[in-house]
Amino acid sequence: MVTEIDRMLAANREWLAQFPGDLPVAPARGVAVVACMDSRMPLFGMLGLAVGDAHVIRNAGGVVTDDTLRSLAVSQHLLGTRAIVLVHHTDCGLQKASDDEFADLVESRTGHRPPWSARAFDDVDADVRESIGVITAAPYLLSTEVRGTVYDVATGQLREVS
Amino acid sequence: MVTEIDRMLAANREWLAQFPGDLPVAPARGVAVVACMDSRMPLFGMLGLAVGDAHVIRNAGGVVTDDTLRSLAVSQHLLGTRAIVLVHHTDCGLQKASDDEFADLVESRTGHRPPWSARAFDDVDADVRESIGVITAAPYLLSTEVRGTVYDVATGQLREVS
Repeated sequence: MVTEIDRMLAANREWLAQFPGDLPVAPARGVAVVACMDSRMPLFGMLGLAVGDAHVIRNAGGVVTDDTLRSLAVSQHLLGTRAIVLVHHTDCGLQKASDDEFADLVESRTGHRPPWSARAFDDVDADVRESIGVITAAPYLLSTEVRGTVYDVATGQLREVS
Repeated sequence: MVTEIDRMLAANREWLAQFPGDLPVAPARGVAVVACMDSRMPLFGMLGLAVGDAHVIRNAGGVVTDDTLRSLAVSQHLLGTRAIVLVHHTDCGLQKASDDEFADLVESRTGHRPPWSARAFDDVDADVRESIGVITAAPYLLSTEVRGTVYDVATGQLREVS
């Protein structure tokens, strides 16, 4: 049976025709993007990024966890980025269940209650502001600019959260 | 001054001409990609993904942390994915410093020693296998297929790790 992963590996052969060649490891535009994992957000297209332009950090919700801070610290201290842009979005899966409902669901299906919370949220603008706050409060970074946005998955438009 | 983030927000207006329209929140191909944040990996192009096809989880190294497991659990339990493909790569920033050197560097620049390690590594194939092992050992998931790859940033080729 050919699986979806087999299809992705095969698709890589077509990519070689567009491959731009070897580039430096440090992002050319000095930016790290922190975004939700949502399948409807092709960040390179949405933000006009070329290959090599920016680090892309993504997780469920685009929230700032210890792992996000680790990635941002590596990005800034080892690879020279200084700006951070957050990209959350409308119609997020994490707005559809509470942390308790999620833990109950996982436990009911697997027999194991996860030790971490889902990080569900209601208000996406508030969630962006909270994420900015966690980044600016972290003493390990060298950021010169931290901004947050919400992507509208129904229209393709990105809106800055002020 | 126009910053790089200003340029990204402006580039979003050009994206609207290509925007494919509203799509379901659940990924169409039932796959979650776990990859390094490296700026040279445009995963949609590299894997032949269309908008809406797959979740994309990315951090420094593409390593599997608690936050990665949280994201995968949300992907599988709330949004129906079952396959996972890992994408690490050659010439990674995390191969260029040890965890201790990284902590020393952050402390020397900020006055604060981070409580998390950088997750540096030497052998990328071994790092992929370790990440697969962490996923398969986690009791909270419903994965039916977990595979790992290494992307060669000098050639654009993706190689499966067996």
